[in-house]
Amino acid sequence: MIIVLNNRIAKEEYESIKKYITDRGAKVHESKGTEKSIIGVIGDKRDLDQSAMEAMPGVERVISILEPYKLASRKFHPQNTIIQVGNIRIGDEEPVIMAGPCSVESEEQIFDIAREVSRQGGHILRGGVFKPRTSPYSFQGFGIEGARWLTAAGKEYDLPVISEVMEMEDIEALYPWVDIFQVGARSMQNFKLLKSLGKSDKPVFLKRGLSATLNELLMSAEYILSEGNDKVILCERGIRTFVEYTRNTFDLNIIPMIKNLSHLPIIVDPSHATGRTDLIAPVTLAGLAAGADGFMVEVHPRPFEAFSDGNQSLNYPQLEELLTDWRTIREAVLILRQKKNKEVARNVAEFHG
Amino acid sequence: MIIVLNNRIAKEEYESIKKYITDRGAKVHESKGTEKSIIGVIGDKRDLDQSAMEAMPGVERVISILEPYKLASRKFHPQNTIIQVGNIRIGDEEPVIMAGPCSVESEEQIFDIAREVSRQGGHILRGGVFKPRTSPYSFQGFGIEGARWLTAAGKEYDLPVISEVMEMEDIEALYPWVDIFQVGARSMQNFKLLKSLGKSDKPVFLKRGLSATLNELLMSAEYILSEGNDKVILCERGIRTFVEYTRNTFDLNIIPMIKNLSHLPIIVDPSHATGRTDLIAPVTLAGLAAGADGFMVEVHPRPFEAFSDGNQSLNYPQLEELLTDWRTIREAVLILRQKKNKEVARNVAEFHG
Amino acid sequence: MIIVLNNRIAKEEYESIKKYITDRGAKVHESKGTEKSIIGVIGDKRDLDQSAMEAMPGVERVISILEPYKLASRKFHPQNTIIQVGNIRIGDEEPVIMAGPCSVESEEQIFDIAREVSRQGGHILRGGVFKPRTSPYSFQGFGIEGARWLTAAGKEYDLPVISEVMEMEDIEALYPWVDIFQVGARSMQNFKLLKSLGKSDKPVFLKRGLSATLNELLMSAEYILSEGNDKVILCERGIRTFVEYTRNTFDLNIIPMIKNLSHLPIIVDPSHATGRTDLIAPVTLAGLAAGADGFMVEVHPRPFEAFSDGNQSLNYPQLEELLTDWRTIREAVLILRQKKNKEVARNVAEFHG
Amino acid sequence: MIIVLNNRIAKEEYESIKKYITDRGAKVHESKGTEKSIIGVIGDKRDLDQSAMEAMPGVERVISILEPYKLASRKFHPQNTIIQVGNIRIGDEEPVIMAGPCSVESEEQIFDIAREVSRQGGHILRGGVFKPRTSPYSFQGFGIEGARWLTAAGKEYDLPVISEVMEMEDIEALYPWVDIFQVGARSMQNFKLLKSLGKSDKPVFLKRGLSATLNELLMSAEYILSEGNDKVILCERGIRTFVEYTRNTFDLNIIPMIKNLSHLPIIVDPSHATGRTDLIAPVTLAGLAAGADGFMVEVHPRPFEAFSDGNQSLNYPQLEELLTDWRTIREAVLILRQKKNKEVARNVAEFHG
Repeated sequence: MIIVLNNRIAKEEYESIKKYITDRGAKVHESKGTEKSIIGVIGDKRDLDQSAMEAMPGVERVISILEPYKLASRKFHPQNTIIQVGNIRIGDEEPVIMAGPCSVESEEQIFDIAREVSRQGGHILRGGVFKPRTSPYSFQGFGIEGARWLTAAGKEYDLPVISEVMEMEDIEALYPWVDIFQVGARSMQNFKLLKSLGKSDKPVFLKRGLSATLNELLMSAEYILSEGNDKVILCERGIRTFVEYTRNTFDLNIIPMIKNLSHLPIIVDPSHATGRTDLIAPVTLAGLAAGADGFMVEVHPRPFEAFSDGNQSLNYPQLEELLTDWRTIREAVLILRQKKNKEVARNVAEFHG
Repeated sequence: MIIVLNNRIAKEEYESIKKYITDRGAKVHESKGTEKSIIGVIGDKRDLDQSAMEAMPGVERVISILEPYKLASRKFHPQNTIIQVGNIRIGDEEPVIMAGPCSVESEEQIFDIAREVSRQGGHILRGGVFKPRTSPYSFQGFGIEGARWLTAAGKEYDLPVISEVMEMEDIEALYPWVDIFQVGARSMQNFKLLKSLGKSDKPVFLKRGLSATLNELLMSAEYILSEGNDKVILCERGIRTFVEYTRNTFDLNIIPMIKNLSHLPIIVDPSHATGRTDLIAPVTLAGLAAGADGFMVEVHPRPFEAFSDGNQSLNYPQLEELLTDWRTIREAVLILRQKKNKEVARNVAEFHG
Repeated sequence: MIIVLNNRIAKEEYESIKKYITDRGAKVHESKGTEKSIIGVIGDKRDLDQSAMEAMPGVERVISILEPYKLASRKFHPQNTIIQVGNIRIGDEEPVIMAGPCSVESEEQIFDIAREVSRQGGHILRGGVFKPRTSPYSFQGFGIEGARWLTAAGKEYDLPVISEVMEMEDIEALYPWVDIFQVGARSMQNFKLLKSLGKSDKPVFLKRGLSATLNELLMSAEYILSEGNDKVILCERGIRTFVEYTRNTFDLNIIPMIKNLSHLPIIVDPSHATGRTDLIAPVTLAGLAAGADGFMVEVHPRPFEAFSDGNQSLNYPQLEELLTDWRTIREAVLILRQKKNKEVARNVAEFHG
Repeated sequence: MIIVLNNRIAKEEYESIKKYITDRGAKVHESKGTEKSIIGVIGDKRDLDQSAMEAMPGVERVISILEPYKLASRKFHPQNTIIQVGNIRIGDEEPVIMAGPCSVESEEQIFDIAREVSRQGGHILRGGVFKPRTSPYSFQGFGIEGARWLTAAGKEYDLPVISEVMEMEDIEALYPWVDIFQVGARSMQNFKLLKSLGKSDKPVFLKRGLSATLNELLMSAEYILSEGNDKVILCERGIRTFVEYTRNTFDLNIIPMIKNLSHLPIIVDPSHATGRTDLIAPVTLAGLAAGADGFMVEVHPRPFEAFSDGNQSLNYPQLEELLTDWRTIREAVLILRQKKNKEVARNVAEFHG
């Protein structure tokens, strides 16, 4: 932590800052410049609050130089985390294909989609049963009944299933029915929900909030990890910017950045990142070329009859075309992934020895 | 609702769009332009899903021309909503002063602050006991014990109290202890929480999310209103933009905009909207000059010892200076408010007769 | 400048960083933490390029702690800059009223508007003759002919005039006709234009770019100041954010922030900051309450016949109402300004003595 | 154009809107809904100003449904534009590799880099000689002398060259020395510069502004095209958002979106889009997988000695690694491009026949 001092700091102010730090067990390292003086804080900073220090008279600003997350950091866990769900390994060499409807709408609908996802080679079946909707007058999901249909469809076609939890009570209710809990963008900083999920033994699929920074995303992962659940999967689903021609702006940069800073897998969600079916294929391919560990797309047999997100759902032929495109570049992408994994292995070796 | 058609739409596509609309009880109004054709949808649109319609073959885009909210709209409720809490009337002529610490830190601390807020003429005492913190390693609040101290301090100095709820279970737990429930920016779209608050008889102070649009804010209010609780207070607390020199960007425009579109009171939170004590006074005055119904500031006797938000908390002399500035422009602001209220009254009269 | 080193920096890398710094005449101050080590750079840093240093092996990041601007800084020029144009003093106690059409459309139009602005007590007449338009097919202004009309109208009604320059050649062309050169938001980083204006003896009204940071705005002012022209007036006219209900987002925070960091006057432009006539009055009042040195509004006798910006132009009765509102709070605002000026005077005295 | 009327519109207001439209040669199409009424405007709208119409009493909002650009639109020019520069064809099947230093720093430096770019298989040499720098105290480029070195180096290694123009006078000065004019992000809306370039016979490389919308980018292209120069190359180089860990946010979505809406080639600039050397490779690969027509990277033999942009410049081995990665996926990308081109050809055939 670096404390930049005000030019006009009084002697007593200076002394009281130093006392504040040493009283809390850290050490002070002074450095006087020609125009600015700074104090470096060395040692254990657990008891030092950055915001409080910025309020001290004589302090101009406080700069934190350490990452705020620990368990989510690649420094503490150099090798990639791989999460096994049934026969599927998320974070391993083969990118994972997750597909399904925005909302589970009927038993028939989810069985039909599951059959198609399975037939086309998808790995995991998604389907919402508790739906966070901007309007109280919109369809809010079929709840546990929908979860039962989802699970049955997944079983029938041998696909693990994922569904969203919005509240702590949903965790217990959905536990028997899903293989992965999804945390939606709007809940990324529902910290009590994250803590509860941290006590579960099931993987958590954590979507980035609409305006979440990278640090905030990893700190939300840290909430789950710090309670003991090490099965966290991150997801980039677009951020809110001034851009008007897509529902959200896909922040591609975060994919390789997460790969640098964290060991957790990261999945792209091109449906929400664009809000347009015609952009799903190029955005998916781009995400995979940049190192993503898989993708999640919304699929519906007749998108114009969907209860929600019709305009960003693929129909079956569109899904087929996306997967054909993916298979066109898959081999090249696997070579890039193997190269990357060798680098990781080299770093792990160096780290341990 | 207006449906802009694709140039190359096929005849069957056109017919099937029309059928879709009329099947759902609405009427179609066709308009062929030289370059684009459009379909206007007239009548009851409750069963028409905009997102689904955008997925129909031949549709280029769907434009909604009605506001999505109803109960929150000034069209349905032309006069200003005034919310009574103890002797305080929020939304009435006199702007309301809400002050207190970010976190309740001890019985002694909250009594000390309550005494000062009361002495300086504040109206409502704030204090957090469940704290949403980005880091799982930060102080998370004293919970119900803190709520008890807060209530006792409020009682002692005759100040109604407000505190944040993060989860549905917090509502029941805090019910006996607070006069107003606060919903934080991160929970603005926790829809189940909003619905539960809609069933309460206590006022709800709803903070705008970091990247919430105006429609999203009013739709979240609609969740509460539609369950029967008509005591909703809105709060602008800054949005996330590219701007780097303040913690958030205070969106002043939303204040008069809300006053146009809605009957609900709106309060400014200059502490979060700036993250800097030196900007709190000018931002507060600006908000009040633009029509805000009050302000909420963070206060701490020694901000550099605060458990949270020290860098945006006023100490007692700073609070005094802020209130002196406010009193300097108060009379002029009241004249502007009376003028505005006369306009509202004229519109109400016109509306009813 | 603080250099944060990579955990795994090699000894030779460390030495070569130190050599790089000392070779360029600055001194090194080392500080080893438990998790990170940093190097403080002391003394003259003119030859050190932050971007280059970040490219050095072993460097994790470089943090600049000094402000990049000098002449624009209040540290180098503690008292407020006041700019005299005719009888008007911009930056002095009385806030300045600038008004006029977006575009000069005819001799008759500008004379009519000038008469009205003068009658209502406005101080400066604005009018565009070179118009930056998003579309090549839109009206691009009447050029020098329009400038002649503008000047004649200003002379007739004793109002100094301001008009926009888009290119270096416009400066010479407009020189005989205007009292203040305006630099539009799109040209804020047209550095050659800024340098040319720095060689002029006329004041420059510099509008903040749509996505300019505070540092970038002040660095653009620095371009003008460093060429010898000390008459720079800043203008906040809204920034581009995700917000959809106004053309731009008015960044009120920048007004008091500029007042802290710089001695230059700052004006608000509520027409562009909102794009809506119904928001102009509250935003203007807010800006003045927050410390702005004046405001500039677009005025047109019949906005729906305007060649440009009709939707954000006031008609004459609307201008009158705005000025009535302003006069309601003017006295209180002047008291706040006098208080602020006393603080500045105290700091200047302290600075010199 | 669709005009949404205010609920309380008076009869005379309604009539005067209709008169305004028909007076200007367009036709009116009325549609009364239960809650809102709208007017559709049919026919030639050239004389109708959207902003003016929004200022008419009784109008709530005006919605434009036609794209504002014409020559840049794929509707008017269905086949891809291919731009030939020497032997290089930009926009054709083979993506183009553009590389070189941020600034030309010496004759030796640019010859050294040109040799390396040529040796590694690059197609076009970039190098800045007029540098737009945020600070007036930073290196501003070697001007025409630098341009001479650049051209000589390009000739020696058979690489066409590209360099940035900042002012109209730069166009004439650089004309003899460069093969492609670059317009930087800060100049994207320097409309007089664009018009001048529209009269040139050399290709223009138009970088998207930091906060430019897609429509604004294409309208700036329209400025060049409408003056007769049809050789416009677009470039995505990152936008400004709240994201803090990269210099800019790479807006990948715009690549396929431009391919849908326009016939112009689009290039990615991963150096500026990230500001970090470690993200250049993944972002480049992603851009190409999404359909970009090439990429431009900054290269320097010793980035930490670069006069500008050192932290986002690749050294020679890093360039080599990037190109190796690119070659790994190149064949797959070419197959995707051929498929896309067949679709375009099908649409062209349909269009003509």
